[in-house]
Amino acid sequence: MKKGKWNSITDVNGVKVGHVTLHEQSSSTSACTGVTAILPHEGNLFEQKVPAASFVLNGFGKTAGLIQVEELGVIESPIMLTNTFSVGAVLEGTLQYILDSNPAIGDSTSSLNIVVGECNDSYLNAMREMKVRPTHALEALRSAESGPIAQGAIGAGKGMICYGRKGGIGSASRVIEGDEAATVGVLTLTNFGDEKECLINEWLKRNGYSCDSKSEQTTTDFEDKPDGSVMIIVATDAPVNERQLKRLAKRAAIGLGRTGTSLHNGSGDIIIAFSNAYTIPHANELSTVTQTILRDDAPLMNKLFQATIEATEEAVYQSLIHAETTTGRKNRTVERWPVKLREDNPKS
Amino acid sequence: MKKGKWNSITDVNGVKVGHVTLHEQSSSTSACTGVTAILPHEGNLFEQKVPAASFVLNGFGKTAGLIQVEELGVIESPIMLTNTFSVGAVLEGTLQYILDSNPAIGDSTSSLNIVVGECNDSYLNAMREMKVRPTHALEALRSAESGPIAQGAIGAGKGMICYGRKGGIGSASRVIEGDEAATVGVLTLTNFGDEKECLINEWLKRNGYSCDSKSEQTTTDFEDKPDGSVMIIVATDAPVNERQLKRLAKRAAIGLGRTGTSLHNGSGDIIIAFSNAYTIPHANELSTVTQTILRDDAPLMNKLFQATIEATEEAVYQSLIHAETTTGRKNRTVERWPVKLREDNPKS
Amino acid sequence: MKKGKWNSITDVNGVKVGHVTLHEQSSSTSACTGVTAILPHEGNLFEQKVPAASFVLNGFGKTAGLIQVEELGVIESPIMLTNTFSVGAVLEGTLQYILDSNPAIGDSTSSLNIVVGECNDSYLNAMREMKVRPTHALEALRSAESGPIAQGAIGAGKGMICYGRKGGIGSASRVIEGDEAATVGVLTLTNFGDEKECLINEWLKRNGYSCDSKSEQTTTDFEDKPDGSVMIIVATDAPVNERQLKRLAKRAAIGLGRTGTSLHNGSGDIIIAFSNAYTIPHANELSTVTQTILRDDAPLMNKLFQATIEATEEAVYQSLIHAETTTGRKNRTVERWPVKLREDNPKS
Amino acid sequence: MKKGKWNSITDVNGVKVGHVTLHEQSSSTSACTGVTAILPHEGNLFEQKVPAASFVLNGFGKTAGLIQVEELGVIESPIMLTNTFSVGAVLEGTLQYILDSNPAIGDSTSSLNIVVGECNDSYLNAMREMKVRPTHALEALRSAESGPIAQGAIGAGKGMICYGRKGGIGSASRVIEGDEAATVGVLTLTNFGDEKECLINEWLKRNGYSCDSKSEQTTTDFEDKPDGSVMIIVATDAPVNERQLKRLAKRAAIGLGRTGTSLHNGSGDIIIAFSNAYTIPHANELSTVTQTILRDDAPLMNKLFQATIEATEEAVYQSLIHAETTTGRKNRTVERWPVKLREDNPKS
Repeated sequence: MKKGKWNSITDVNGVKVGHVTLHEQSSSTSACTGVTAILPHEGNLFEQKVPAASFVLNGFGKTAGLIQVEELGVIESPIMLTNTFSVGAVLEGTLQYILDSNPAIGDSTSSLNIVVGECNDSYLNAMREMKVRPTHALEALRSAESGPIAQGAIGAGKGMICYGRKGGIGSASRVIEGDEAATVGVLTLTNFGDEKECLINEWLKRNGYSCDSKSEQTTTDFEDKPDGSVMIIVATDAPVNERQLKRLAKRAAIGLGRTGTSLHNGSGDIIIAFSNAYTIPHANELSTVTQTILRDDAPLMNKLFQATIEATEEAVYQSLIHAETTTGRKNRTVERWPVKLREDNPKS
Repeated sequence: MKKGKWNSITDVNGVKVGHVTLHEQSSSTSACTGVTAILPHEGNLFEQKVPAASFVLNGFGKTAGLIQVEELGVIESPIMLTNTFSVGAVLEGTLQYILDSNPAIGDSTSSLNIVVGECNDSYLNAMREMKVRPTHALEALRSAESGPIAQGAIGAGKGMICYGRKGGIGSASRVIEGDEAATVGVLTLTNFGDEKECLINEWLKRNGYSCDSKSEQTTTDFEDKPDGSVMIIVATDAPVNERQLKRLAKRAAIGLGRTGTSLHNGSGDIIIAFSNAYTIPHANELSTVTQTILRDDAPLMNKLFQATIEATEEAVYQSLIHAETTTGRKNRTVERWPVKLREDNPKS
Repeated sequence: MKKGKWNSITDVNGVKVGHVTLHEQSSSTSACTGVTAILPHEGNLFEQKVPAASFVLNGFGKTAGLIQVEELGVIESPIMLTNTFSVGAVLEGTLQYILDSNPAIGDSTSSLNIVVGECNDSYLNAMREMKVRPTHALEALRSAESGPIAQGAIGAGKGMICYGRKGGIGSASRVIEGDEAATVGVLTLTNFGDEKECLINEWLKRNGYSCDSKSEQTTTDFEDKPDGSVMIIVATDAPVNERQLKRLAKRAAIGLGRTGTSLHNGSGDIIIAFSNAYTIPHANELSTVTQTILRDDAPLMNKLFQATIEATEEAVYQSLIHAETTTGRKNRTVERWPVKLREDNPKS
Repeated sequence: MKKGKWNSITDVNGVKVGHVTLHEQSSSTSACTGVTAILPHEGNLFEQKVPAASFVLNGFGKTAGLIQVEELGVIESPIMLTNTFSVGAVLEGTLQYILDSNPAIGDSTSSLNIVVGECNDSYLNAMREMKVRPTHALEALRSAESGPIAQGAIGAGKGMICYGRKGGIGSASRVIEGDEAATVGVLTLTNFGDEKECLINEWLKRNGYSCDSKSEQTTTDFEDKPDGSVMIIVATDAPVNERQLKRLAKRAAIGLGRTGTSLHNGSGDIIIAFSNAYTIPHANELSTVTQTILRDDAPLMNKLFQATIEATEEAVYQSLIHAETTTGRKNRTVERWPVKLREDNPKS
């Protein structure tokens, strides 16, 4: 399938991404972490909620906010990513961000549900120091932009390890053309897998990439490395509802599986999917809402499934392709994946 | 069924409860909120995890930590309760509490899953001010005790409203005697319902209580009152596993329903159940664990179901019986339930 | 809340109910069972599917067809009820019924999902003889009518036992009037509970019924009686979608719980909810479908919740009020509930 | 990972598989279908239940019996596979099979939960004729054997189509050796996918197979072909409980995804997993059961995950490798996958 202009989640019109990266190494501290913010559309997210769903593939994870997404079928906040021990701080900062522009929340209207996902970056980041503060969430949110996005060892991805090499943020998109056009964009925060499982080389070949591999791969000795996790955010502009978005979320799991992982016990593998084709207003004089959604048996549905799988698979690989060798806590270094795309490659 | 010694969740041996209450009214601020901590046993909760499960009856709620409980079937932290906008602060404080006594977490062993539940107390509490800080969580944890517990407008219950009257923390227990003895204790944080739905008077009569009711009930005018929520924590010392604890959690929903509510749209009604009959060690040289659990068709199982329903129903009412009239934000007052138990009552 | 004209699931316009009852006692056989059919609307159910959802309160049950309801959010067949060992026969008969009027199914279009629920009537019925045949399903379907419905020991309810007395089919409805009018109708197949749990007397009093109770209740000695089950079918003409119907289904669980049961281990307690406010066509030239559905925070939503609880609670009691003393297998007799409504009662 | 002796689900000690195939073409009828039975162990399945779980990847399917599996965590019957419209007949036949050897069921003890999965074989089989009768289920059960199993266009697989070619029954296994030895066996009923999605050629190469491919593949013109489905049965002798078996079931979904499918809308993709490492007795004088199960963080757990993925992926391919070109309804022919393994291949 065809890629979008930026081959990124931001190919879904209105979606914006922002990063804040913390990298500080000294004798007394060791921050190698960050925050990534995904905004489903450009308007007021609380006032105009997006249909959404999640799928927990392996629930060894601490993502906050999914209970209400499941009950009401909407997301009413940005989707935030960070390290495991910073969920609280990012929750608080994001809450403050929304409260600042919505004076009625928690006063004269209902409360607010914030979605925060996480992976464990404690191999490179002194996670116990909790260096991410609420202000970092605000900073990530304020820096969010449409257009091409920074990937690899950046934002929440700064300290992550994927398939034994440097992972982090990766993104990809697929565009379905024709009468029923639609875009699917995926952003992943990758922090999982063993090097020997990874199928990136097969994928590069299958997709016509040419690359130079180092002849010898030096596997990092991961003493004390925890099992990792992966967060997958799926965005689309196709008119699908919360039930159908759960179907897309399950397909993202398949895309993840295509990259080779056997979904280790300790890996929190969680998928969140939303559409911004339509929004549900927070308050309304009307007691009903009228939605035009895709039929499950429409040809476009199967194409959305395929697009989600392909974009997820590639987003994982893009995190490896973009991430640079990084040194963090205890002077540990995690090397980049030993693949160099050649200049004659199709634009990734 | 027979009540336990304290008619409280602390009748389950080892369970401890602590509260921190914030109550400050001035021209510039208005705190009427708090934190309540429930400790499943007296040992190191991370090192000795308890089997656990949850049931989301109505998911208009922001409880954190349940994804991992569902996947692994254990709780490895205290269960914390607070207001909706303080989940982040309490998450961070509780994390710090556990990290302090477990230096390996996030360093050489895996991460940690904290469970925090919440209700929206914004009618009486200036929730947007986020007055609960991480230190309050530590304070609640350090104050936790076994034995009789304070109920009503205290801890996380300080600002809550139940059935149009002052609600908050309520607890009750049931003891099953005989060859197969067991205790079920329930703690609720009540913040839901309309006054006209409440069936407490029928319950008081059915259970042999005598009471004086005010002849006229003055229904508070709840301008801008949000739909409420309820958190229900079920503890038992019966040897049940995570699957069976989900069965208990569903019975707690029935107990809640018996009190009259129709589970309004905006109410986050969430149940968390654990057993401390046995624990699962965090790390072990053995690759297996041996558990002796109750057969599903054992007579005790149905008694546990009944005990859970009865204790949940009563815990809701105990929150009403104990809660005192409280004044909070914008000088609003929520009155106590107009029932006064007479001195000749059976000890509740 | 106000009851509908028939105080029955058939108060939801278009819903039809049909029964076939088998009752034959001889030295060689003992049928005391039947089939009940609920048709969601009067048109072609496969061509015009209704939005639907289910909630499994206690999954000790063998209901067929719910996996697809969960995935696609629709029901495309009648909802059939029978005894546990006749699910296969009723599945086959109902399939034949739909195939007969839809020649394309399984030929040039997709297959068909039939929903069949069940309870275990083996105390009175020789269930192992499998006396219900596919033709009985057809017979029940062909006899389905709108208007008042037969209740008690009839159809699938012929051999059922509820709260230690004769149970079976019970139905009730609630009507919401005003600008946002809607009807909720519930049909239950009751086969659960112990006599001492039942709260019918409290309910009769609370609802202004007058009745004569026998002074002494002779509890049947239920040697070898299995734990029972209950099937609850919720119908509405309110414009709610599959996600919202699951919310209604959970409220039906609360209505059941109000009748006193503690949901015994061996009881399959399953709720199925549908709306016929709109339908989803099987095939269409359009790739989208436009639906006008209720907002979750519309005042009508909470009224639907209350209506579902009230109608479910009463439907259980109606099954007791209507069921006559019945003799079946091994010459066992199950007596009617010892309550006789007086003539001056409000019409139930 | 190493394959088991038979590279089949029967490598899990005690597991037996039986097939009955119906193939009859005339002017008046067209049967091209069958039944496949999987027995989890060699003893009385009702008296000695196995821990089990399921995972619904795409719920466009009519599998019966999973509600009770989810609630109680056990399977107490054979697992049966057939075509979509024969679920009722196979349910009835299997019920009769178990009743015949368990006179107390439905008489003096509880009822029985039968598990039947299905795929839609209506392209080749006149499914509307319902040629599979209850006796065919008995026949399949009585023919069940351990040791090597027949695969391809046989039993329930007779009329199935996979990736546009002849599919059906496929099986594979993986053996984990060492101190913590275990076997995982998978049986699939394949009936899904488009030819262009299939990744079998990549897999054959990656696994060192040599093969001759026909130069030109003649894609069958599938007028009126429905979207297909796949049933995946995972067996293991590792001591895992129902919660952990659900984790295995989710990994089987990943194995399926590796074969290339994008999980089309109309495909019922359902996984059932069981262990026969221990059994739970139906009735017992004791009220507890003692189980020794694997720790989630035991190294063996991740190996079981990998084994499940690998065996599922290969089982799908084995169905293609074994299935012969088949002619059925309306004289339609579905050709075998155009790959011929060469004689110098490793034994598959």
